[in-house]
Amino acid sequence: MATRQKLEALVDEAKFRVRDLRKSGAAKEDVLAAMAELDIRKQKLHEELEKHKDTSFNREGFEDLMKRRFFYAPAFEIYGGTAGLYDYGPTGCAIMNNIQQEWRRHFVLEDNLLEISCPAMTPYRVLESSGHAKRFADIMVKDMQTGDCHRADHLLEDAMAAKMNDDDVTEEQKAEYARVQTMADTYTKDELKSLFEKYGIKAPITGNELSDPMDFNMMFKTEIGPTGENPGFLRPELAQGIVVAFKRLYDFNGNRLPFGGCQIGTAYRNEISPRSGLLRVREFPLAEIEYFVDPKYKDHPKFKTVADLELPLYSADDQEHGRVLTTSRLGDAVANGTIANETLAYFLARIYLFLTKIGADPKKIRFRQHLRNEMAHYACDCWDAELQTSYGWIESAACADRSCYDLEQHAKATNQELVAAERLSTPIIRDRVIADANKGLCGRQFKKDAKLLFAHLANLSNEEAEDLEAKLKEGNATLEVEGKSLEVTPEMIVIKRRQEKIHERKFVPSVIEPTFGLGRIIYAILEHSYACREGDEQRQWLSVSPLVAPVKCSLLPLSNKPDFDPLLEELCTMMTEEGITFLKDASGTSIGRRYARTDEIGIPFGVTVDFDSLQDRTVTLRDRNSMTQVRMPMDAVPRTVARLSRAQATWDDVVAEHGLCQTGSQ
Amino acid sequence: MATRQKLEALVDEAKFRVRDLRKSGAAKEDVLAAMAELDIRKQKLHEELEKHKDTSFNREGFEDLMKRRFFYAPAFEIYGGTAGLYDYGPTGCAIMNNIQQEWRRHFVLEDNLLEISCPAMTPYRVLESSGHAKRFADIMVKDMQTGDCHRADHLLEDAMAAKMNDDDVTEEQKAEYARVQTMADTYTKDELKSLFEKYGIKAPITGNELSDPMDFNMMFKTEIGPTGENPGFLRPELAQGIVVAFKRLYDFNGNRLPFGGCQIGTAYRNEISPRSGLLRVREFPLAEIEYFVDPKYKDHPKFKTVADLELPLYSADDQEHGRVLTTSRLGDAVANGTIANETLAYFLARIYLFLTKIGADPKKIRFRQHLRNEMAHYACDCWDAELQTSYGWIESAACADRSCYDLEQHAKATNQELVAAERLSTPIIRDRVIADANKGLCGRQFKKDAKLLFAHLANLSNEEAEDLEAKLKEGNATLEVEGKSLEVTPEMIVIKRRQEKIHERKFVPSVIEPTFGLGRIIYAILEHSYACREGDEQRQWLSVSPLVAPVKCSLLPLSNKPDFDPLLEELCTMMTEEGITFLKDASGTSIGRRYARTDEIGIPFGVTVDFDSLQDRTVTLRDRNSMTQVRMPMDAVPRTVARLSRAQATWDDVVAEHGLCQTGSQ
Repeated sequence: MATRQKLEALVDEAKFRVRDLRKSGAAKEDVLAAMAELDIRKQKLHEELEKHKDTSFNREGFEDLMKRRFFYAPAFEIYGGTAGLYDYGPTGCAIMNNIQQEWRRHFVLEDNLLEISCPAMTPYRVLESSGHAKRFADIMVKDMQTGDCHRADHLLEDAMAAKMNDDDVTEEQKAEYARVQTMADTYTKDELKSLFEKYGIKAPITGNELSDPMDFNMMFKTEIGPTGENPGFLRPELAQGIVVAFKRLYDFNGNRLPFGGCQIGTAYRNEISPRSGLLRVREFPLAEIEYFVDPKYKDHPKFKTVADLELPLYSADDQEHGRVLTTSRLGDAVANGTIANETLAYFLARIYLFLTKIGADPKKIRFRQHLRNEMAHYACDCWDAELQTSYGWIESAACADRSCYDLEQHAKATNQELVAAERLSTPIIRDRVIADANKGLCGRQFKKDAKLLFAHLANLSNEEAEDLEAKLKEGNATLEVEGKSLEVTPEMIVIKRRQEKIHERKFVPSVIEPTFGLGRIIYAILEHSYACREGDEQRQWLSVSPLVAPVKCSLLPLSNKPDFDPLLEELCTMMTEEGITFLKDASGTSIGRRYARTDEIGIPFGVTVDFDSLQDRTVTLRDRNSMTQVRMPMDAVPRTVARLSRAQATWDDVVAEHGLCQTGSQ
Repeated sequence: MATRQKLEALVDEAKFRVRDLRKSGAAKEDVLAAMAELDIRKQKLHEELEKHKDTSFNREGFEDLMKRRFFYAPAFEIYGGTAGLYDYGPTGCAIMNNIQQEWRRHFVLEDNLLEISCPAMTPYRVLESSGHAKRFADIMVKDMQTGDCHRADHLLEDAMAAKMNDDDVTEEQKAEYARVQTMADTYTKDELKSLFEKYGIKAPITGNELSDPMDFNMMFKTEIGPTGENPGFLRPELAQGIVVAFKRLYDFNGNRLPFGGCQIGTAYRNEISPRSGLLRVREFPLAEIEYFVDPKYKDHPKFKTVADLELPLYSADDQEHGRVLTTSRLGDAVANGTIANETLAYFLARIYLFLTKIGADPKKIRFRQHLRNEMAHYACDCWDAELQTSYGWIESAACADRSCYDLEQHAKATNQELVAAERLSTPIIRDRVIADANKGLCGRQFKKDAKLLFAHLANLSNEEAEDLEAKLKEGNATLEVEGKSLEVTPEMIVIKRRQEKIHERKFVPSVIEPTFGLGRIIYAILEHSYACREGDEQRQWLSVSPLVAPVKCSLLPLSNKPDFDPLLEELCTMMTEEGITFLKDASGTSIGRRYARTDEIGIPFGVTVDFDSLQDRTVTLRDRNSMTQVRMPMDAVPRTVARLSRAQATWDDVVAEHGLCQTGSQ
């Protein structure tokens, strides 16, 4: 594995070097040399992967289970479905709810975040300011006959893959195709056009001619109201709603910084060609935090609580030098400048703790820092939390320091002051030159223009006021006010000098932005928890943590005899009162088969009511992971399961209290 | 009040009679007589209302509080806002989350509902089947100069109101205008056109000419994918997603009926002119249940648990006869046929219990049955749960028996079998006459048409098969199969007779549909909980129940001295661990003013840390409603507040345990 990681890192490094060289307009031979190196490294990685092909994950079996037990399935399936739209079924939806509740406990409660809920429907101007209206686009090509659209980079990748498999391909050609394939998502429209012409790429399946590559904005567009004059877009992320509400939030927080606004909600992206199940969809759940800080103080009071944590940090530097992923102590990473500031580092830690708490495999988490050329121009630092799945490393959360960009953009567009203020312990004293108008005189002279004049005078800088003073010493002066020329006499204006005390410093806050793709996170933890019982390929089960498991407990009578009904009824009532979700399975099927069915949807605990129960009100409680059981009083079960499900107790605690029991099928 | 209710009922009755007469095409004089009666009744009601004008609710103060403490506020406010789009702020969003969680406990957990989550983005065909594409429309008129759009019925109402206030209006005219105003939302496009012409109604404010009235579909339309060939709509309600997923849900439930699917989510309606704050908006949260039952058995096993409940039922019959609202025992209402069936009645009870549990004022809830002419043609029975607000009685939830309509529509459109099956205890035995083909002979004769022939023969009824038998006795027979004439010889077909056992009855389930407008419910319970402290108009407070209160507890040190910090810190940690939301206010403001601030956002409990606390680790706990306090050990506070907030204990319990204490400001 270490070899593979090393090789992956080397490929990444070469890839980034090629990209950099191309962006910086380097000499052609340098670019070609770098590309050749990339080819060699990719070939080595390919060989290594082939050698150790990971056959442990059975994606077909997994996907079948997801659909069969309705974790998720294509939406509107009886109508043939629509690409990129999914239903979360009862199991998937319960996991989603549990994760959202845990997210609230972990983030909102712990850091007193201000959770809000903004509309998905967003007017054009907001997304114009944020840059989405212009830049939120992919490049596509159209089938000239059918009108089908394809992402240009995807087609190019597929075409190169096909060419590499041609029988008569030379080694040299193969290297070229591989290179183009690797770079597919970096080409401009013009570059793509030449490449499509060079390789004669046609539409897949139909073989028709393709249009020139064109931009396609991925936001869903509609009209707000009936006039047709108010375009609206479905938000492609949640951040803008929070940023736009900054003033209300700052006020709500008693005008104190730092604080975080956040929301959980749905975002929409009109993908050209959705792929990879839940990973690239058109409507998806997100959770986002916008943590507003003073740009001068990005320290975090609680950073000390996480400074000793070792995180898998894949820094830009490591990527660029082809080093493998290592773990670093957060305190060190901040101290040596790998992570830009404490607040960013604090949230990286909180993200890591959250992901592991809800069941992501710690070995399959890494934080990948954006390279300089990957980051938006205004961002200071950005890290993706990636989860490893059968589709590779998937960006599932991220944490960026977006500086003051968003607030500044919206302030500019709306002419509003989106600032915070810091009370200064020592006021700053400033000399002011003020041009004061004789209001009566000016009013009589300028009538309704007088107001404009007063506003103009109030906004003069010291220099401008002194300039005016000099002119008035010579006689009348003419002022240009909102397109009008107003002639003022020396009698109308008095120049005064005084000192002003400034008690507060106003500034535009910076934003640290942790975001979470909840759908991708759910997909990844389901993959991470998918397994088969040892020695039985057919017996699939999910090891999802009790905290997020869709149903906490199964209730199984030993048989479907009515004798067990009264006790079962009692148990159901107690479970409901304790707020524990349960699944009763009183079918005649064998207890072993029923356990297997509950294992498939990840139910962590199972109660069996048997003949002894009828005598002494004891039942068995089974742990899914270890398949071990204890015998315990029925009345204590709901509270025990509640504590287990809220991570307030472990199965070991339960075993220690009640002792293992040997009876019963597993 | 009784008089007012009586008069309201009389107006309703007259209104419905006029509507009925018009719909049924009754003689003009009958309609006019009914209208005159309506006028008289309206006038009486108006006088009564004027006499007892309810001045107790201060809507301006309430709305100011909602905005100032950010329960909700116009979205994108710094951009001037967009009509009908709101942000839920930290307080409103917390209430929303609490209500959703309580909804899950109350409905999903209690009745083992299958909660799913479907996309809001919906392909055209689904909404074509459901009827929304055609019928989900309001009538509007356009300002011919500015293009502004108005709901035709709203303009008509406003125009009539203006005319009634003219100085020279006669009593006769006044009566006419009042009549037209009352009927405004019942007119067709053509009727509206004549009325607009008759009264010379122009655009408001501009006074411009108006277009003819036209239909405006209230669904937001967009394009799914880039081709422009796949129209998508944002769902106007949540039901269709659940109904369309019926097969997967039925399968998930082990092919057993009855069961309920449900979802909580956002719906969208492109209102022509949004009004009334949160009550008529363009994007709003809903919760819906689709409870699938066998149309033959609409009894409910748990109905007995609610049969004795007395509900405020305003039946169609009572409305039509101008009777006032009374309460009825549910068991009786089902027995005497007022409510169509037990399942419907069970959910009415559950809705009532839910609304009161989350803090709706029981005196401001009523269930209004739809009149025959109000209901969709396929519905059997429908009740709106209305909440009384300063805008009048508002439909906030509803429960309808929609029969098999939706499933049948989707089955027809997709050619899928959307049915349930009941296993028959005694199989039904049926005689069958079967026309069996000689496959070899037919295959040679008809080549690829043979398959069509076989399918045709398999679908013949007993009568058709006997008919064919008779023909073949005479010689060859010609069959019309999918537009082709196939001539079969007697050798090709053998007629057989046998008995068939039928083991199951297949049927399309009926759907009982409880729906909840969560935004309207939140608005109403906030209004219901808004009050001022006796003798102090300025001291507003919200009596929201601890279950849904946005924050459960305030933490207030007696002063902002650092002495209190360590204890406060400890309390914060304990509160977080217990999952209790809290608000720390360590500002220097007086304790009384700080209590007032927490009362304003409805925080039900408050802890004060004082000098005694430093000595003996006791604190005071204050109850918002009674403004009384107890003194208790600090370490017991989080658990106590948790139990109070989950309705597991009452303030009286706490007082009984710790005794009232007299110290401290309120």
